[in-house]
Amino acid sequence: MIDLEQISGLAIATPSKIVLLVLDGLGGLPHTETGLTELETAKTPNLDRLAKEGICGMVDPVSAGITPGSAPGHLALFGYDPLRFSVGRGALAAVGIDFELKKGDIAARGNFCTLDQSGIITDRRAGRIPTEKCTELCQLLDGISINGVAVLVSPVREHRFVVIFRGENLSSELGDSDPQREGVLPKAVVPLSTEAARAAHIANEFIANARDTLAERYPTNMVILRGFAHYPDFPKMSEVFSLKPAAIASYPMYRGLAKVVGMELLSTGTTIAEKFATFEQHFDSYDFFFIHVKEMDTAGEDGDFDRKVKAIEEVDRALPRLIGLNPDVIVVTADHSTPAVLKGHSWHPVPFLLRSKWCRPDGVEEFSESACAKGSLGRFPGVDIMPLALANALKLGKYGA
Amino acid sequence: MIDLEQISGLAIATPSKIVLLVLDGLGGLPHTETGLTELETAKTPNLDRLAKEGICGMVDPVSAGITPGSAPGHLALFGYDPLRFSVGRGALAAVGIDFELKKGDIAARGNFCTLDQSGIITDRRAGRIPTEKCTELCQLLDGISINGVAVLVSPVREHRFVVIFRGENLSSELGDSDPQREGVLPKAVVPLSTEAARAAHIANEFIANARDTLAERYPTNMVILRGFAHYPDFPKMSEVFSLKPAAIASYPMYRGLAKVVGMELLSTGTTIAEKFATFEQHFDSYDFFFIHVKEMDTAGEDGDFDRKVKAIEEVDRALPRLIGLNPDVIVVTADHSTPAVLKGHSWHPVPFLLRSKWCRPDGVEEFSESACAKGSLGRFPGVDIMPLALANALKLGKYGA
Repeated sequence: MIDLEQISGLAIATPSKIVLLVLDGLGGLPHTETGLTELETAKTPNLDRLAKEGICGMVDPVSAGITPGSAPGHLALFGYDPLRFSVGRGALAAVGIDFELKKGDIAARGNFCTLDQSGIITDRRAGRIPTEKCTELCQLLDGISINGVAVLVSPVREHRFVVIFRGENLSSELGDSDPQREGVLPKAVVPLSTEAARAAHIANEFIANARDTLAERYPTNMVILRGFAHYPDFPKMSEVFSLKPAAIASYPMYRGLAKVVGMELLSTGTTIAEKFATFEQHFDSYDFFFIHVKEMDTAGEDGDFDRKVKAIEEVDRALPRLIGLNPDVIVVTADHSTPAVLKGHSWHPVPFLLRSKWCRPDGVEEFSESACAKGSLGRFPGVDIMPLALANALKLGKYGA
Repeated sequence: MIDLEQISGLAIATPSKIVLLVLDGLGGLPHTETGLTELETAKTPNLDRLAKEGICGMVDPVSAGITPGSAPGHLALFGYDPLRFSVGRGALAAVGIDFELKKGDIAARGNFCTLDQSGIITDRRAGRIPTEKCTELCQLLDGISINGVAVLVSPVREHRFVVIFRGENLSSELGDSDPQREGVLPKAVVPLSTEAARAAHIANEFIANARDTLAERYPTNMVILRGFAHYPDFPKMSEVFSLKPAAIASYPMYRGLAKVVGMELLSTGTTIAEKFATFEQHFDSYDFFFIHVKEMDTAGEDGDFDRKVKAIEEVDRALPRLIGLNPDVIVVTADHSTPAVLKGHSWHPVPFLLRSKWCRPDGVEEFSESACAKGSLGRFPGVDIMPLALANALKLGKYGA
């Protein structure tokens, strides 16, 4: 597989424009009554037109049989091999609440939990306290400084929070304090390398502090931490692909992932219409647009087949605005499948289409799982998408003489 | 992906014969009026028959979206992963003029150029002097010796030449003296590793010598060098595939690439008929034949759709002579696409067919991009071709017990 360094040697900045439209969780499974997937059920004349004019295939975002999380799924679409590039869980949680991580920060996921009198964990989630309660407790812990390291604590939801340690030369090679089960003591944070001794000390000091602060707050009388991670220092899309990329997304997680690869984050609304309006507004200023639409994923997670169908149809109705600006390359695909019948992410390959002036149309007449499976691109890994998009925008030079 | 070392452990010498017929630049794009590619337009009853009796697919010579140069494209067809094996530009240029490089030689590409009185480059190509003039100037510089290193200078075309440094323990880790722009001084050749200090010194001595020799020859009063490279020391096809391979090609570049992987170069003519005659003549003496046909690539580069169609039809008409000898495996494919509408190499996958007694025919009825895209081999990387050919010739043992 060609790597980012090799690609960066071939990439050429040109005025041509690429749109990557990600319909989150698009891939589905057949409805038990009709035998048709969500996408096959939806009326999508505009997506069908793009499929007919373009080339199609089925993408394994990460690898055959692997169910992608949102982060690996998107990193693959952005051209970063998710088996090599990973965003640690703590950093992802921080990104997911729009927390502005800085280079060098380490972040961890935390739970408020319940200890009994002997210090044993009786409830890892402290009875799933309301988010407002979590916010109040976070304020008690937020903003202290330990040996010159600032500790920032932000609520996520229910019993969950994120803690960020901000200081010089902190290693994230730390074990969890969360034992991931009840009936045992919390663990001390252990350094997993000699360089991590100082960071482990600071994390343990924070935990000791929190225990004191929360002593009278039963059932939320302790914190447990897991997934210590640095903010990732990935090469940027401007360097590796010679692009000027922009992200049009409303959920913090996807905005955060786009930022990790160096996209500029455009202000936009939450609806599909607002996102396409943002695209129109900024069309002249960038040469790569990542547009993220979340609705089909949430409907799939809820097991709501019909709502997922409607979300797909809503995108299709809005598409003429995007097509009307005639970007050189339009890619429509997903970061993973979220079949309503499974109520969650799945490993099924996702439908893919690419339309450009220079593609060799393959006779696929509609955009659906069954039609894309007959496309000329066959089944292929997600990391191939960026080279294909760049090539079709005439943004890649020849490899070797 | 299986590597050459693993393959070499499985390869068995047998009398069965493989033909790899490379139709350079075969892959195309639809004609704007007919919607058919060059290959789809051509009448090719014999290729269609082979496709029908064989298995088909579409090959990415290097990787999805990557436009291969001739060298990476051919290395892939020969079974050498072009992302791992590369022929440096200087070595390729030497190979391209049929210069007999020896192991240890380093080669660089050179330009005759024009300096003004202050030594600044005013024309990197010295007004694109005629090749005869270049030949005359090369003779002035050729054949000197610097600290025991022989320096050989050969013309290429117009202002371009190749220089070869032949001596013991010369490193090719050298920076270019060619600044790749005008209005600046030529650069000194800098060593890119400590081992390269001696080679850099010799290259700079050669340049100083050339400057003296050419002082009165305005506008060709200087040379600039780039792309220093060793003659590649690749494992040979006889070792890795247990083959006795022969190349039937007329262009020096392809003969040179065949030699790099250890093929014997057969004397042949430039026409398709002459190449097939050479094949008949030597059929008994080798078990692998690489036959190179250049005409479809040059027509594609010229943007001449019809000439490319005719070249394909000419190959098809000559094919019965090749098929008549009944080689055990016939592979027909290309090193890259050269669509006439793009007037150059492109990233589009190339059509592929393999016919053998032991393949499992897949219902493809003709040899074309659209038909091969429906073949049972799907879309696959170029380096898989050799294992498939060897297997179908029953030349590969079982992997593992």
